[in-house]
Amino acid sequence: MVDIEVKNRHNYYPMNDKLFSTIQKLSEFEGFKDVCHQQMENHPMPSIEVLKEIVQLSRSILFPGYYGDAAVSPRTMMYHIGVNVDRLHLLLEQQIKAGICFDCTPGMNSDSSIEKLSDQIATQFIVQLPIIRQKLHTDVVAAYNGDPAAKSFGEIIFCYPSIRAISNYRIANALLHLNVPLIPRIISEMAHSETGIDIHPGATIGDYFTIDHGTGVVIGETARIGSNVKMYQGVTLGAKSFPLDKNGNPIKGIARHPRIEDNVIIYSNSTILGTITVGNGAVIGGNLWIDTDVPAGAKMAQKR
Amino acid sequence: MVDIEVKNRHNYYPMNDKLFSTIQKLSEFEGFKDVCHQQMENHPMPSIEVLKEIVQLSRSILFPGYYGDAAVSPRTMMYHIGVNVDRLHLLLEQQIKAGICFDCTPGMNSDSSIEKLSDQIATQFIVQLPIIRQKLHTDVVAAYNGDPAAKSFGEIIFCYPSIRAISNYRIANALLHLNVPLIPRIISEMAHSETGIDIHPGATIGDYFTIDHGTGVVIGETARIGSNVKMYQGVTLGAKSFPLDKNGNPIKGIARHPRIEDNVIIYSNSTILGTITVGNGAVIGGNLWIDTDVPAGAKMAQKR
Amino acid sequence: MVDIEVKNRHNYYPMNDKLFSTIQKLSEFEGFKDVCHQQMENHPMPSIEVLKEIVQLSRSILFPGYYGDAAVSPRTMMYHIGVNVDRLHLLLEQQIKAGICFDCTPGMNSDSSIEKLSDQIATQFIVQLPIIRQKLHTDVVAAYNGDPAAKSFGEIIFCYPSIRAISNYRIANALLHLNVPLIPRIISEMAHSETGIDIHPGATIGDYFTIDHGTGVVIGETARIGSNVKMYQGVTLGAKSFPLDKNGNPIKGIARHPRIEDNVIIYSNSTILGTITVGNGAVIGGNLWIDTDVPAGAKMAQKR
Amino acid sequence: MVDIEVKNRHNYYPMNDKLFSTIQKLSEFEGFKDVCHQQMENHPMPSIEVLKEIVQLSRSILFPGYYGDAAVSPRTMMYHIGVNVDRLHLLLEQQIKAGICFDCTPGMNSDSSIEKLSDQIATQFIVQLPIIRQKLHTDVVAAYNGDPAAKSFGEIIFCYPSIRAISNYRIANALLHLNVPLIPRIISEMAHSETGIDIHPGATIGDYFTIDHGTGVVIGETARIGSNVKMYQGVTLGAKSFPLDKNGNPIKGIARHPRIEDNVIIYSNSTILGTITVGNGAVIGGNLWIDTDVPAGAKMAQKR
Amino acid sequence: MVDIEVKNRHNYYPMNDKLFSTIQKLSEFEGFKDVCHQQMENHPMPSIEVLKEIVQLSRSILFPGYYGDAAVSPRTMMYHIGVNVDRLHLLLEQQIKAGICFDCTPGMNSDSSIEKLSDQIATQFIVQLPIIRQKLHTDVVAAYNGDPAAKSFGEIIFCYPSIRAISNYRIANALLHLNVPLIPRIISEMAHSETGIDIHPGATIGDYFTIDHGTGVVIGETARIGSNVKMYQGVTLGAKSFPLDKNGNPIKGIARHPRIEDNVIIYSNSTILGTITVGNGAVIGGNLWIDTDVPAGAKMAQKR
Amino acid sequence: MVDIEVKNRHNYYPMNDKLFSTIQKLSEFEGFKDVCHQQMENHPMPSIEVLKEIVQLSRSILFPGYYGDAAVSPRTMMYHIGVNVDRLHLLLEQQIKAGICFDCTPGMNSDSSIEKLSDQIATQFIVQLPIIRQKLHTDVVAAYNGDPAAKSFGEIIFCYPSIRAISNYRIANALLHLNVPLIPRIISEMAHSETGIDIHPGATIGDYFTIDHGTGVVIGETARIGSNVKMYQGVTLGAKSFPLDKNGNPIKGIARHPRIEDNVIIYSNSTILGTITVGNGAVIGGNLWIDTDVPAGAKMAQKR
Repeated sequence: MVDIEVKNRHNYYPMNDKLFSTIQKLSEFEGFKDVCHQQMENHPMPSIEVLKEIVQLSRSILFPGYYGDAAVSPRTMMYHIGVNVDRLHLLLEQQIKAGICFDCTPGMNSDSSIEKLSDQIATQFIVQLPIIRQKLHTDVVAAYNGDPAAKSFGEIIFCYPSIRAISNYRIANALLHLNVPLIPRIISEMAHSETGIDIHPGATIGDYFTIDHGTGVVIGETARIGSNVKMYQGVTLGAKSFPLDKNGNPIKGIARHPRIEDNVIIYSNSTILGTITVGNGAVIGGNLWIDTDVPAGAKMAQKR
Repeated sequence: MVDIEVKNRHNYYPMNDKLFSTIQKLSEFEGFKDVCHQQMENHPMPSIEVLKEIVQLSRSILFPGYYGDAAVSPRTMMYHIGVNVDRLHLLLEQQIKAGICFDCTPGMNSDSSIEKLSDQIATQFIVQLPIIRQKLHTDVVAAYNGDPAAKSFGEIIFCYPSIRAISNYRIANALLHLNVPLIPRIISEMAHSETGIDIHPGATIGDYFTIDHGTGVVIGETARIGSNVKMYQGVTLGAKSFPLDKNGNPIKGIARHPRIEDNVIIYSNSTILGTITVGNGAVIGGNLWIDTDVPAGAKMAQKR
Repeated sequence: MVDIEVKNRHNYYPMNDKLFSTIQKLSEFEGFKDVCHQQMENHPMPSIEVLKEIVQLSRSILFPGYYGDAAVSPRTMMYHIGVNVDRLHLLLEQQIKAGICFDCTPGMNSDSSIEKLSDQIATQFIVQLPIIRQKLHTDVVAAYNGDPAAKSFGEIIFCYPSIRAISNYRIANALLHLNVPLIPRIISEMAHSETGIDIHPGATIGDYFTIDHGTGVVIGETARIGSNVKMYQGVTLGAKSFPLDKNGNPIKGIARHPRIEDNVIIYSNSTILGTITVGNGAVIGGNLWIDTDVPAGAKMAQKR
Repeated sequence: MVDIEVKNRHNYYPMNDKLFSTIQKLSEFEGFKDVCHQQMENHPMPSIEVLKEIVQLSRSILFPGYYGDAAVSPRTMMYHIGVNVDRLHLLLEQQIKAGICFDCTPGMNSDSSIEKLSDQIATQFIVQLPIIRQKLHTDVVAAYNGDPAAKSFGEIIFCYPSIRAISNYRIANALLHLNVPLIPRIISEMAHSETGIDIHPGATIGDYFTIDHGTGVVIGETARIGSNVKMYQGVTLGAKSFPLDKNGNPIKGIARHPRIEDNVIIYSNSTILGTITVGNGAVIGGNLWIDTDVPAGAKMAQKR
Repeated sequence: MVDIEVKNRHNYYPMNDKLFSTIQKLSEFEGFKDVCHQQMENHPMPSIEVLKEIVQLSRSILFPGYYGDAAVSPRTMMYHIGVNVDRLHLLLEQQIKAGICFDCTPGMNSDSSIEKLSDQIATQFIVQLPIIRQKLHTDVVAAYNGDPAAKSFGEIIFCYPSIRAISNYRIANALLHLNVPLIPRIISEMAHSETGIDIHPGATIGDYFTIDHGTGVVIGETARIGSNVKMYQGVTLGAKSFPLDKNGNPIKGIARHPRIEDNVIIYSNSTILGTITVGNGAVIGGNLWIDTDVPAGAKMAQKR
Repeated sequence: MVDIEVKNRHNYYPMNDKLFSTIQKLSEFEGFKDVCHQQMENHPMPSIEVLKEIVQLSRSILFPGYYGDAAVSPRTMMYHIGVNVDRLHLLLEQQIKAGICFDCTPGMNSDSSIEKLSDQIATQFIVQLPIIRQKLHTDVVAAYNGDPAAKSFGEIIFCYPSIRAISNYRIANALLHLNVPLIPRIISEMAHSETGIDIHPGATIGDYFTIDHGTGVVIGETARIGSNVKMYQGVTLGAKSFPLDKNGNPIKGIARHPRIEDNVIIYSNSTILGTITVGNGAVIGGNLWIDTDVPAGAKMAQKR
């Protein structure tokens, strides 16, 4: 009969025993319990893909024509901004909720209160976009004025990595100030991967900020940077040491990074460490290791 | 009636007032006029996506089998090269036009003259591909000879980031010499994001050039590099200072980067600044800060 | 007649002569013979796209819920691990074969022996995944304990670039020990491009390893790193010089990188060169250039 | 200054007035209120894309190896079924909820009760998959036995449109019996578009059912079909007339289609209309118009 | 040397001679001149992909929420309509130009006059969208009232193939009346492939038109259909014969299809041929062949 | 400790028991053995996606400029044909092998003999493409001459469904004559789904063949159609009855469909059944049921 024929020709490609027992081993609770994320029911995970779209939407609102639909004009501007804001709100509300739920414990908050909160935070973020755009405009002006190779504002917005990194920072910083967990850090790591510039969302950065080339720049969580500051590639604003608690673990969240006052320039590959202050107008040469205060107006250079 | 029923069940999800007024604010001309690109009618914007395809097509012509269709053979080579050149010409003509139009003012050039010019430049670029391929072959040989970890030419072409960065540089440099605006810079920034190596398209670089590891390398707009030069990660060929014009703005385009003569080696994280010359066969150790001429054959090392 | 009409309206857009002759030139054997890869019949090329999926599958087995399907739970774990292991074996066998064939000469091995070998190696790699997962767990713990800005294990797995770089290294290292050519290097270069961290698959690295920020880190082929070692951005473990053979070419594969013992910390942008040893518990400050042994427990800092 | 220059070169591409006023007109509430769907807050719309994946997942569970991952084997079967069932449950729960919410009025049901209901229905559907698979197996056997052109069971599962249409019908019918609104109809329309076979999910169809070629077949909502029935392309089982209510509108949902008993054959393009019965073993020739009962065993043919 | 080694291991996979000579044969002008389209320089080909997006955009403007972004609400309606109209105009202008250029002869029109014309036609089409939406609303009402299985307007818009076919027809018909060549026919063939309903864009169709099931319906170029007409699957409104010109070729474009007056119902698979008239309120039974006038109010049924 | 905290917050979303036991049931061998395809090791399954690309490549070789790259010109024709033939050969060889392996029994053929055979068949198919192109050219001419609505050859190639269906038929028929199993049937079903026209690859069809509208056309496995034949939608060339073997099963593969001689026209929805002959120049009216020979030159019409 047909069935017998069909059965006889089965010549299955067997999975070998070693793979089989490895699957068993990898599926044991003890083995995966610390490296496996468990979402609670109906609580979404943050999505790298959606966060990429959020960054893209924000950029298209902040720099219309350069990002998003290139054909925008003053008369159609409102339509494009409207649609982008509408979608940004939807996606951001969802990712904020995902961020809140990432580490939340059962029973901590009711679902509906988290949803209401996420909606409010998304709105509050969007309300700040006009101010973020103004700040980014000052960063573009600073990059243009500071780089002899720059031909136009457009060139800077379109292809300078520093503008991408600073945009992500200003977005992530605004979300952090609205107490959104996890999401700001993911957004800043996206720029880190794209540009090699690692700015912690917790840092404070003034207007007219610019970073030339940028690969290897690190700006730590509690760094404070004034207005009109310029940095080159490889500059670190880092922590010198971490105070430990009585169990020998680092105390989380306390100030440990430098304060850079207005009008400072820091040349490539220099490292500024600890809770020191670099005073107004100071110029730090390249390849330096600074862990004490620098007075205003000082010119530091590598000894030879 | 049906219509009434339909009407009554409308329970629209309203956009809240704060979003609504933020959209208004973000759509005001004063707010976006400096951060919004305005293309002229029928003038395309440069497209990052198309430029990525242009780089990919160029690589598949320069290194057939490694990039593009892997199944190419000597007998089918002409078909593959023919199709790739045909498409490269089409896309490049379009992006060159987009680059020319990016900052052009109304009435500057007639559309048809820009199109004719873009067509000519695209052709002139393609005509140089055999020479670019020869130069890149020397770069592959240099990487193979200089790295004890390299097993074959193929490994270098297939996975060394320096070859990707130098390929983009040689492409971008050729386009810049044909007076294409903006596009060369975008192509070099693509390699910068992919590899952490930032080579300005305006730099001049000889044959047998190699960069090991590469992250953090910066080579400035007016740097001139001889033949058989090797660099390691984190090396900067930068500007020391920018001459200012009478308004206090940096003068654009003048020479401000080093000249590196033939057979020089520069170890990791060293910084060479200003219009100095590093002489034939010099060896610059790591982590150095050099802003004066280095004589031919000198061996520089960090003092301790 | 119809045909004539059709014929007459042909107004072909001609390919110009310069493009035509350039295609000829680019298709000449002498021009491409050294930059063109030739696969043997039925021997696949390694595929960057497939290798990306292999890395993604490995990550989803090692860190279930963070990578791959977010909705995995203990009860469904076995299904997800099973499907991912099944596909990983299939793809890996194929890429291992591609790696083996990349440089193999005709007649070197029969097809069926290469296929059998690739199958065995893929299985042997998968059998090691439980151990690789344990090692990566120690790396996560080290990152959590060492960074005051880290809020949870989850945050570290989800967005710290060092975990991505170390994961790729541990995968590539296991494949290299199974004598797979080329593929390990491509996998480590993927992490290099994504994170700016360049770890050669040949390096030996112990448990509880962590890299903060990471951009610009280079760890060479013969470096050996103990347990509980921490590094910051820009650190190089490099070669000091290459012994040459009698033809003046570097001797491939011999030891030329440092040995870092347990519990060492190396701050940002320091360079450790040559076959030296940094002893247990030593602390190397930032921006240093080290090419001699460092005793256990020493604290090295930049002189000023 | 820079700003003035930038301002002056704006030469915006204006949206013309006719488009502008048409947008206004199309955005007026009166114009769109009857053709615009309004979801309630947080109530998803059914998604054609997700429903396509649901059909694809169901097919890969019902016919493993033909649909979904081709490399499944008896030893890996459980893993593949497990992952597919897990994902099918997730997507189906979401689409069932979307279907329930599509026409629901505010306040009708609490969100959580709809979610719980959707979860239960999705589970109940999946529990029926083994029975659905058995029924589909009988349909495959019938197609094989009835078509001299069929070479194997595999050929039928792999490329006969009738199997695709009947699979979608059996899935949609099960969902309809679980009181899922809208979704079953969308699933059957997918098969209609793919195959030209339009089977309403409300129809009742026995085992060993087969349709040859199939384009143009229509089987109405209240049709009942016995076991071992065969149809050809263009056959309609339709309604003869619709009883109207006192307002002159058709009464929805009452029986109005034929009953086809076991072992009936209906040749191409015949139309069977109304609540008639075609008796066991009857053969209806092609191009016939039947609106009265056909006795068991009758042979009907077109008069000439 | 290295080069020699590389050379020796070349073992190219040769293209066989039969393929080689077939390529030659397929590339000869005589062989392809009648089956190859030649665009003039800078004249785009119509693009099926772009036309699909045009249909999708039109549907999202006509039925907001059902097609396109599901999250549209009255307050955000204007933004969504604005963006969609803006993009529709851009794409349509381009495709209209492509349609005009498809058969145009060199020198027929200047490029700039074709562009201006395409822009005007695209605008004129968009201006008609509010009227097209009103007409489609009547079609939805007719489908709802005529089908006892229909549960809501929403179900009809979302999944009835007739609404998709009629939407494409009303779009294609408007474009044809604006003298756009080729494009209307492609748009109606898209619906034909999707639904099995083939309505020529040249047909004239009144309000409240509905087709049940629809597979196999054909409505010819010069058919005229009144208001409130209903059809079932397989109905043809065709030509009886084609008057020939003196060369024996059919005369193109003259009236050759039926006129269907208001309130007519035509049951499944009936064929109405030639320039006849079916009078107001007539009912045509199924499977009939009609090639003479049918008086108003007549009830036609198949003889048995 | 950290681990305990992590452990405690696990609140896994459990898979419910009903799903769990259904997975078990669906994974039992008895349940899936007849509906699951088992490939032998290293024997690929036919891939619908690859077969779609094969059809697309064939169309771009047969109708250059209409399908595939629109920018082809006589001077670049050879490059495009060369690349397309090269890839077509590669994909076709692989799918032919998959077709041969689909039902093959273990040990039937060695792998290498199947590979060699597949390579030969793929080449033999490609060698026939010039002849297939000539035949399709006659079909285009016939469609143009027969349809008063057709404006140009280009319109017919670009958007007439009959050309797509006949192209797939001529491709599938050539493959069937080269004894390729399964693949031809999948290719003809692709056209069936796209156009509603179902032509069995085994049918024999002469030059200048055309089908108007086409939905619902069925042409059976052993039908033979002469030159210059025209059909309309819904025409069936079917089998009247199937001779049974002594077990009561239909005898596979024997002649059972009509022979249509040259110059015949068959109007819509007519059904021609059995091994009859319709003589040269006969005209079959619409909606007819023909199961006896029709003499040459006869005009058949529906009686009324």
